[in-house]
Amino acid sequence: MGTNYKTGQSLDLKNSTVLIAGAASLVGSHTADQLLAAGTREVILLDNFSFGSMQAIEHLRDHERVKIVRADLLRLPEIIQATKGVDGVVHLAAYMSLGFSQTPWQAIDVNLRGVQNMLEACAINNVKKVIFASSNATYGYGTGIKGELHESMAFHSEGAPPAAILYGASKIMGEQLCRTYLQQRGLDYLVLRYSTVYGERQHYRAANALYIMQTYDQIKSGQAPVMPGDGSETKHFVYVTDVARANVAALQSPTTDTAMNISGPDAVTTGELVQLILDYCGSNLKPEIKPDPPGTVRLTSGGAFYIPHNKAKDAIGWEPQVPIKEGIKRLLDWRKQNDTP
Amino acid sequence: MGTNYKTGQSLDLKNSTVLIAGAASLVGSHTADQLLAAGTREVILLDNFSFGSMQAIEHLRDHERVKIVRADLLRLPEIIQATKGVDGVVHLAAYMSLGFSQTPWQAIDVNLRGVQNMLEACAINNVKKVIFASSNATYGYGTGIKGELHESMAFHSEGAPPAAILYGASKIMGEQLCRTYLQQRGLDYLVLRYSTVYGERQHYRAANALYIMQTYDQIKSGQAPVMPGDGSETKHFVYVTDVARANVAALQSPTTDTAMNISGPDAVTTGELVQLILDYCGSNLKPEIKPDPPGTVRLTSGGAFYIPHNKAKDAIGWEPQVPIKEGIKRLLDWRKQNDTP
Repeated sequence: MGTNYKTGQSLDLKNSTVLIAGAASLVGSHTADQLLAAGTREVILLDNFSFGSMQAIEHLRDHERVKIVRADLLRLPEIIQATKGVDGVVHLAAYMSLGFSQTPWQAIDVNLRGVQNMLEACAINNVKKVIFASSNATYGYGTGIKGELHESMAFHSEGAPPAAILYGASKIMGEQLCRTYLQQRGLDYLVLRYSTVYGERQHYRAANALYIMQTYDQIKSGQAPVMPGDGSETKHFVYVTDVARANVAALQSPTTDTAMNISGPDAVTTGELVQLILDYCGSNLKPEIKPDPPGTVRLTSGGAFYIPHNKAKDAIGWEPQVPIKEGIKRLLDWRKQNDTP
Repeated sequence: MGTNYKTGQSLDLKNSTVLIAGAASLVGSHTADQLLAAGTREVILLDNFSFGSMQAIEHLRDHERVKIVRADLLRLPEIIQATKGVDGVVHLAAYMSLGFSQTPWQAIDVNLRGVQNMLEACAINNVKKVIFASSNATYGYGTGIKGELHESMAFHSEGAPPAAILYGASKIMGEQLCRTYLQQRGLDYLVLRYSTVYGERQHYRAANALYIMQTYDQIKSGQAPVMPGDGSETKHFVYVTDVARANVAALQSPTTDTAMNISGPDAVTTGELVQLILDYCGSNLKPEIKPDPPGTVRLTSGGAFYIPHNKAKDAIGWEPQVPIKEGIKRLLDWRKQNDTP
């Protein structure tokens, strides 16, 4: 592990209570699975169930080391109550770009005031460490997003739709609120900037991962998959179990006060992605090229990029394990078994 | 005037009511002065007077075309009431970096929810045009800030203190909330990104302009002025009457849906600035070089830069008129006449 990072508190999971905020979700449920597998003393699953679904954590409902708490990040007293005796927090709850387009008031509430409420509650209750789920959206969108997206990269917004910029800027602010609480209240934190997360229990709100499922649905119904652009655009996904491992590693690491990318082993072009899905389906269909209408927020919202994750290896000893081909297989196997259109 | 910009509604000031939000301020009071001089039918000065002072608008109190409204941007009903019959809004109210450091909850309230409330009220009351006061903070702070800060520049935060990043990101979000209201509700807007504003009625909250007054105070008390760094850093100020003219020009322009820099005729190095203040005082003192402690938010928070303003000339026909030497003289003449330490 790198020695160039600031060190603070780390968690001995067997003697720790960990709270996941926004737990009834893709990343939340997998993080809970892995925390339990690692022997964590108690895992508190907090959600207001407005977007989160009980279905995502159904399998954990009767687990003896799991406690499910229905609470709202906008009600500080509930969060103070929920974080009593908690050692570590994984803060996932957030609105994404589509939320900033459709319900910007709620999105600002949750992504800013919700983060402040959680940090305040953690400071009050002497929580040892907060893992803040951020995003490669902190590098922005639009024409300026290309090449390697290093952690020191600036935030680009030229040519991007307002909702995407609002989302990215809200994550930048969330990260800085963490830094403020460390500087002013001594609360240790790590920021994990997830790239596009995909995997079993995928929901239908994440614009980018959604493309995989839409393409699958098209192929299964016999339609040619629609490919925006010529297929040469590059995106960088990360499989949900890799993200969950990163959350666990971050809680256990003494490293504090820094942000790191969490991305899959390799980037993939849109053309390769569509072909992987066609291969999975055993289909001979040819992709139909169709540019998005201007302002669309989805897979095409970025450009051609690769997201390095070597900082995470250095800082918390984490590396991704699931290649895109394997991840697509796992996601679509799950999709088949849970075929609710 | 440029023809490459989207056009929307423009104001005929003689037949218009203009509301200034955050009016009891440096920029607000000067904007009111110039709106009245241009024959505006009615000028509404809205402030909650938490930071704004009645002193700044004392001279306008009995003006027959002025109405002073005490209201709070966080109470939507008050803002809906205040914007009834209003044609144009100049939205100035905001917390700056120091506010994000000292009172981050209030800062997020005002800079985000406050902007949303104002835009919502304007949409409800069919206000024709909103001028949103933004900042060159949307280009960020820290080591990445150098060269020419064009309107398409990305947001840099590497090496910057959290409060400065929070402020800049909040302004980015404010701009995008304006775009959202244009796209979803048809509300025309222009974003003016002020560089560091200084001038008569200067308050003591603006970290950068404050340096001019602090330096003056040091010299007047016989101390050598403190210069952070070797004096070669460049900053770009803009005189408050130039900013007020920009607000008036923006209201009268049909241009909509774009952001532009509002900066003074020329940039200035810290060394030149200190010398201008020494010259004004007729002092032979030599500046004392003293780097800031890490994390300080003030004049040194940026690097060496120049802020071009040619887009504003093209888009709304505005150019700055007051050179730094003249501006410093006007500011310090006022400071002398209002000597309250």
